[in-house]
Amino acid sequence: MKIALFAGDGIGPEIMAEARRVLDGLDLPGLVIFEGDVGGAAYRRHGHPLPEETLEMARAAEAVLFGAVGDPSCDGLERHLRPEQAILGLRSELGLFANLRPAKTFAGLENMSALRPEIASEIDLLIVRELNGDVYFGDKGMRETVDGRREGWDAMSYAEDEVRRIAHIAFRAAQRRGHRLTSVDKANVLETSQLWRDVVTEVASEYPDVALDHIYVDNAAMQLVRDPGQFDVMVTGNLFGDILSDQASMCVGSIGLLASAALGERRTDFGTFGMYEPIHGSAPDIAGQGKANPMAMILSLAMLLRHSLGRENDALRVEQAVSAALSDGIRGADLGGTASTREIGGAVVERL
Amino acid sequence: MKIALFAGDGIGPEIMAEARRVLDGLDLPGLVIFEGDVGGAAYRRHGHPLPEETLEMARAAEAVLFGAVGDPSCDGLERHLRPEQAILGLRSELGLFANLRPAKTFAGLENMSALRPEIASEIDLLIVRELNGDVYFGDKGMRETVDGRREGWDAMSYAEDEVRRIAHIAFRAAQRRGHRLTSVDKANVLETSQLWRDVVTEVASEYPDVALDHIYVDNAAMQLVRDPGQFDVMVTGNLFGDILSDQASMCVGSIGLLASAALGERRTDFGTFGMYEPIHGSAPDIAGQGKANPMAMILSLAMLLRHSLGRENDALRVEQAVSAALSDGIRGADLGGTASTREIGGAVVERL
Ligand SMILES: CC(C)[C@H](C(=O)O)[C@@H](O)C(=O)O
Ligand SMILES: CC(C)[C@H](C(=O)O)[C@@H](O)C(=O)O
Repeated sequence: MKIALFAGDGIGPEIMAEARRVLDGLDLPGLVIFEGDVGGAAYRRHGHPLPEETLEMARAAEAVLFGAVGDPSCDGLERHLRPEQAILGLRSELGLFANLRPAKTFAGLENMSALRPEIASEIDLLIVRELNGDVYFGDKGMRETVDGRREGWDAMSYAEDEVRRIAHIAFRAAQRRGHRLTSVDKANVLETSQLWRDVVTEVASEYPDVALDHIYVDNAAMQLVRDPGQFDVMVTGNLFGDILSDQASMCVGSIGLLASAALGERRTDFGTFGMYEPIHGSAPDIAGQGKANPMAMILSLAMLLRHSLGRENDALRVEQAVSAALSDGIRGADLGGTASTREIGGAVVERL
Repeated sequence: MKIALFAGDGIGPEIMAEARRVLDGLDLPGLVIFEGDVGGAAYRRHGHPLPEETLEMARAAEAVLFGAVGDPSCDGLERHLRPEQAILGLRSELGLFANLRPAKTFAGLENMSALRPEIASEIDLLIVRELNGDVYFGDKGMRETVDGRREGWDAMSYAEDEVRRIAHIAFRAAQRRGHRLTSVDKANVLETSQLWRDVVTEVASEYPDVALDHIYVDNAAMQLVRDPGQFDVMVTGNLFGDILSDQASMCVGSIGLLASAALGERRTDFGTFGMYEPIHGSAPDIAGQGKANPMAMILSLAMLLRHSLGRENDALRVEQAVSAALSDGIRGADLGGTASTREIGGAVVERL
């Protein structure tokens, strides 16, 4: 069993160190760990945010645990050298097309949300976001119009097989949960969305036990504020998924606790190859101060154990240790507490 | 002074009737009123959601007051015949590129929001959305890939002049408000956004008294949940504006009270030509039952009086009459009350 750890920028290294301690605490037999550079850190060391050796390391592993990338000092670089390209490159090079983003309010933390507690406490949804297509990976560029004006352009598209495979992932997830799936698009305006809607509707016939509905993205953004508890599984394209999944996470209120998985088609000996990361970013403003909450990073490790290493029991051990630490009142600054990154990591390790 | 009333579908006719009573109550000298068909209603009568005579009527007027379009019985029609095309067609044919969507919590209605009252009560923002460009109006279609798969595609783009004119609108709005402007894009992924960011930054040099910042759309969706009170004016493209403005409206909680304006470059004798509509939709589920709240429609009329007819005093009279009705406890079903559409309209007219 091989896993690759890519800590990245900002608070990435601090929170990764705590996930590493948790991993060590599990004492998994025969586990080999690689560590690689990504993001601004990689750019400074190797001149590229996603060096070839990092990519090779990922390919050789069963799973990647990813910290965070993003570094304001790289803002002036050309697009292909910016830290974010590490994430986009890993997603596309490794064929990680399915982003699973669960958002669930933790018991006792309903007051962390900007939503009223009785609304926040109902949140228990999974956003399935397509990660390899859409306007993210179409042709793009700057050009001059015939009359000499600058124009920026990006091509948006989805082909039926791209929609079909993510639809299957979403329907299967709905079967394991509340049997309800909401597909989000903008089919009243976009042909890309019309194809999306047509294909999701076709796939639905294979899942008679899942109730499917379609809503427009503007309405979805409203409903996620008004009554996020109405949703079970939501499936959507790369761009709308970027927006709605962050919105949904914030509805929960404690984004320092939310993990995500990016899965592809490659099977490993133990499960599905995947990349796991906290949904929060690199938070450069608090980097290096020991203030970051490593729980989302640790919960990302739990997802990795479950989906890529087939170690459900270890995943549960980690999740329960985090829950126990929370119940015992261990809180980072993001949750109004005073525990440091290292104290939180230690508290989880103790409770394994 | 000529204005065109397009009631449209669903609750459109009911709420328009109340706006009409308010208009009559103002007794404006020399006002000529046209009434035209749009949406599903127009499709049934004329075979098209935006008949040529409707468009001519709009062109001949100083302003358009628009109810709502959207009719589930038209779902099976080809895209160019669907009710929504009336809005998109009017926006593009009339050059209405600037959508102004104020979102402000009404005093005493903080409890209508899903956000905690102390967070909701801070909301007082204006979203300036570009309406004539972006992926909405680019080329689009269905095609087959070389290996025979169906693919939906849409071209996204912005040219510098399109960004510049909406940026000026937004900076000027910020000068009349809190002197802060937030531009929303996805420049870490999209070239269209990079051009947007570059041009907004250039325009900023003409407005040294406005503080500009840029945020990514996923972050904007988070911040609108976490702390919407932090924003003064936000400016963004057509697609992101569609999503974020609906989200912001829902944060306020009472979308039956929110109005919007779509303005172009054409000056009339009294102001700027524009189209005004409530932000809520046609609500087919309650159409014809006298349950719809006409206040957003009436407040759209107030915006029309202000921006297109130059009648600030009449606009204030209407707005104060609505506020007075609310303070007196007149509430539609959407605000937990029992007043009918007609009762609410009457209550506003009485208080003019
Ligand atoms: C960093 C950025 C390119 C990325 C995205 O837009 O996909 C991020 O926002 C995310 O959601 O993982
Ligand atoms: C009806 C639809 C085409 C329209 C849009 O997406 O612009 C609507 O959602 C709006 O925001 O006015």
